[in-house]
Formats: sequence, structure tokens, C-alpha cells
Amino acid sequence: MNMSKLLIVGTVAFDAIETPFGKTDKILGGAATFIGLAAAQFDVKSAIVSVVGDDFPTGYIEMLNSKNIDTSGIEIVKGGKTFFWKGKYHNDLNSRDTLITDLNVLADFKPKVPENFKDCDFLMLGNLHPSVQMAVIQQVPKRPKLVVLDTMNFWMNNAWDELIEVLKKIDVLTINDEEARQLSGEYSLVKAAQRIAKFGPKYVVIKKGEHGALLFHKGNIFFAPALPLEEVFDPTGAGDTFAGGFIGYLAKTKDISFENMKNAVIYGSNLASFCVEKFGTRRMEDLKNEEIHKRLRRFKELTQFEIELN
Amino acid sequence: MNMSKLLIVGTVAFDAIETPFGKTDKILGGAATFIGLAAAQFDVKSAIVSVVGDDFPTGYIEMLNSKNIDTSGIEIVKGGKTFFWKGKYHNDLNSRDTLITDLNVLADFKPKVPENFKDCDFLMLGNLHPSVQMAVIQQVPKRPKLVVLDTMNFWMNNAWDELIEVLKKIDVLTINDEEARQLSGEYSLVKAAQRIAKFGPKYVVIKKGEHGALLFHKGNIFFAPALPLEEVFDPTGAGDTFAGGFIGYLAKTKDISFENMKNAVIYGSNLASFCVEKFGTRRMEDLKNEEIHKRLRRFKELTQFEIELN
Repeated sequence: MNMSKLLIVGTVAFDAIETPFGKTDKILGGAATFIGLAAAQFDVKSAIVSVVGDDFPTGYIEMLNSKNIDTSGIEIVKGGKTFFWKGKYHNDLNSRDTLITDLNVLADFKPKVPENFKDCDFLMLGNLHPSVQMAVIQQVPKRPKLVVLDTMNFWMNNAWDELIEVLKKIDVLTINDEEARQLSGEYSLVKAAQRIAKFGPKYVVIKKGEHGALLFHKGNIFFAPALPLEEVFDPTGAGDTFAGGFIGYLAKTKDISFENMKNAVIYGSNLASFCVEKFGTRRMEDLKNEEIHKRLRRFKELTQFEIELN
Repeated sequence: MNMSKLLIVGTVAFDAIETPFGKTDKILGGAATFIGLAAAQFDVKSAIVSVVGDDFPTGYIEMLNSKNIDTSGIEIVKGGKTFFWKGKYHNDLNSRDTLITDLNVLADFKPKVPENFKDCDFLMLGNLHPSVQMAVIQQVPKRPKLVVLDTMNFWMNNAWDELIEVLKKIDVLTINDEEARQLSGEYSLVKAAQRIAKFGPKYVVIKKGEHGALLFHKGNIFFAPALPLEEVFDPTGAGDTFAGGFIGYLAKTKDISFENMKNAVIYGSNLASFCVEKFGTRRMEDLKNEEIHKRLRRFKELTQFEIELN
């Protein structure tokens, strides 16, 4: 059976993270990195389009390659410095302060889709300037089977028109609850999703962090809980890991029905529950398929009930 | 088949409520009222133990009687005034300010369990001073099949020792997330539930409002989502309605296994989703069984998925 081609666009970056449990120096981060590592859990051919400086360790590139992620679309800018984010989480881990955002080479990022991924079946547009996301869509001549976009409040505040334009071109928007409220002007998430669907996306996924995620499509709603954990160590990358698990599962199964998207958000939530167990990408790098499978059983136990409907 | 006897202890009160959608004068409220109306949806024999003043309209008592709720345990204090609460919800409906709390006859409440309910099978101790809850337990000579207790942060701050004493006597504690954190000193709800279980209750239900509810028992966790609603009109009584649906379903089915408690929290969440649609008890007063049944289907669609485990 032919494997789907999944193209991922987003940041590949350095993060420095402080949580109540410890702190890191510059470690591997970035939306595309987390998406790629999550999607790598499924049998798909994936590639990342991004940009780094020549300060980016080749060891990180090799790690991504070892997960069968094509990195030929990651431009390495000579003399440039890699995007760097430094943040500190509050005690409840639900909020954080950004201490440093050095765009560096990301400021002039012109994405270039590798020739062998111009016919991608699935396209994941990670959180980036909407014009960059649009540039990628325009480089893909054949409409992919599914286009998923992630964004954030920063672009609503600074690139509203470009964001609205790119929303017309996509199938699925993933966004967190506060951002959904800002984008729609509606407090109720049900109404927010209805309003957002009018911008273009047929499917809206609202991520609520520790409170799970909601999938909306026409009148249908599905809810994937977050797995209740004894300890959340570092939430960085959980949303991107969720998106990577979502699109990775869909790309593997090649079934984009609403019923199968239910499974996809469960897989997304499943993978995100691992991501938060260690700093940065560390848990995702050594995650085994059996572990995911075992945790899936916990998701079933957590949500499945047996009331007879007659 | 013999119907279970369910004894409910809690406030029967006047509420005055202001939400972004409107405001009410004094209307019927109180924990026992909401619990009773929810439990009345199931085939159980229930009774309320409470206290009101002689300002309490007989029409309200008649309404409760029309739902087959025995009100002989509601003491009417001559010349006394009924407990009154006035509150105003903020725009997001997730937080509220208490404007008035007039304890009135509740200040000297000495609960008296009616003779014909001293052999109750199920006992629901609504939010009240833990000494009052204990006094009821002591009036019931035969240990009921299940004792459920609801409490709030006020008693943790003002009657800690009495609360700890009564927690030793119960089976299930229902409590909201912030209160669970306060009671346990743990931020993680998984750890909070483990700690709380050491106080006595074998089952802990943590209510998260619009984010659903978690049921904990030993190592097992079940999650009941809240139904995503286009509009929440008035959240007053939602937690008590949840508890009433929970114990009402268990009392009807007489099955207190963890598997059946899963169904019970789904029923609790189901009934709470109706409660918030109108002011006060209004929606619960005219709620029909078919409506509950129909909404149950939405809960199934919201949470059930079909990933094969092999």
C-alpha cells in the first residue's frame, strides 16, 4: 500500500524552558519539530519545510532523519541564527511568560517546498505568519486531500487580513479556546466554531489544554479528553504534538471522514499526553508504538460507557 | 420491584440571580431542591430534610410533592425567614459574586429525619455545615447502601475538623476542582483525588463545570464531559443537579459498581446541561424523560469512538 505524503511547514527552533520542576538551556523545539515527531509515529512519508541558522546542530537534523522525516526542505542560512524562544511557566503550568523571542532567520523566511513533496496528500501548516502559510499552499499545484492550519492570537492582532485569506484555503483549523473566542468574537465555543467555519475551514478543532479538545463539523461535535496525569512536567509543544498526531493518523489511514477524525483527535490527545512528561522533545524522541497503544486503552476506559439507548 | 429510598439533606432556599441575560427576584433555589428535582427523573422514593421560614410559598412545596418528593422533613419555622442567596454572574458565567447571604432559619437548623426514611437506601448530603451532615448520618441507624456528600471551600475554611470527621463516614465526595485542590493541597487532580480518598471517601467526583467531571476510584478514572452548549443561561444549581442525577440513577438501578457509576456521572452531566438553560429550577420543573433520553444520544456521539484495540 502506498504511504501518504505529509508535508509539514513550521518553525524548527531552539527553546529555553523554565517550569516549576527545572530549567533547560537551549534545546530543540519548534512547531514543525513537534508535529513531525508526532506524525512519525504513523506510517507516512513526511517532510519539514522550515529555516534554521548554521548554529543548528547537525545532530538534531540527523535525529529527525532517523525518524524518516525528510529535512531537505529545512533551509540552513549561512551565518544566520536559529529562531529562539525562552519562556517560563507559572506554578499551575496553565500560563507562561515569554521572556525572549529572537526571530533571527525566521524574520526573512521564504519557504521552499521540495520537488518530491509538491504532490503531497496531506499538508500541515504549523503556526507561522499567515503569508508564509499561504506561500506554501501556492507552491503545491495539486490540492492536497486535506489541509490543516494552526495559528495563534499574535497573527489575529498583527496580520488579520492575511489570516482571513489563508483560512479560505484550508479544511481544518486547530486553535486554542481563547484564540477561538478572539477570532470569532463569541464566548460559547459552539458558536465560536460555527462562526469560524464561515471563514472557510469545514472542520474546527478547539484545543483546551488539560481540558481536552473539541472537534466541530457542521452540527456534529466530538470531544477528546486530555488524559488526567499525576504530573505535567513541561507543556511546551503539546498543541503541536496534538496536531501532528491528528494529521499523522489521518495520513496513515487516508480516511478523512468525521468518524475517522474522532479517532484522529484521540490519537492527538494520546500523543500530547506523552509530550508533556519530559522537557521539550525528549519524550517524543524515544516514544514507542506499544506505549501509545497501551495508553489508548486508558482513553477508552476514561470515556466509554454502556448506557443502552432504546 | 421495590423502589429505593433516597434521603436528601440540604438547603431549600430563595435565590435572586443576575446573569448577563437577565435577572430574577426571589425564586426557588437551594441545593436540596435541585438535587431532588434531578433525582425525581428516576423511579425512586425520595424525601428532603431541610428548613424554611413561613415566608416560603406553599406552591413550592406542592410542586415538590407533585414530583413525588416527600417534604415532611422540611421544617417550617413559624415567624422565621427562609435562607436567601443573591448573586451576580460575570460575563463568562464561570465566576460570580455573592451579593447577599442571609442564613435566617438555616443558622439554627437541626435536621430531623422522618421516621419512614430512617431506613433509606441512599443518602445524599448536600452542601451544608459538616456538623449538620453528621447529625443526619447519626439519625440513620442502618448504614445506607451509599452515602454521597457535597461540600465547598467555605467549610474547609471554617469547619475543617468537622469536615474531616464527616468525610470518614461517606462513600462518595462530590467537589469542584478548586475545592479539591484546596482540600488536598495538590494541584494535579489525579493526586488530589488520591489524597482525598485517604480522608475516607472511596469514590471522588471532581466537578469542572463547563469542562466536565472526573470520577476516581482506586486507580480508575472516568471522565464525563459537559455537553457543549450554544448558550448557558444560568449556572445556578448545575452542580447540585449533577449530584442529584448521579445518585438518582444509582438509586434507581441499585448498582453501585464503578461501571455503573460511569453511567451515573453521564446522567448527572446530562441533567446539569438542562438545568443551565433557564433561570433557577424552571427547566428542571418541566423536563421530560424523552428529552433526557434524546440528549443521552448526544453524549454518546460526543464521546464514543471506534478505534480497535488489538
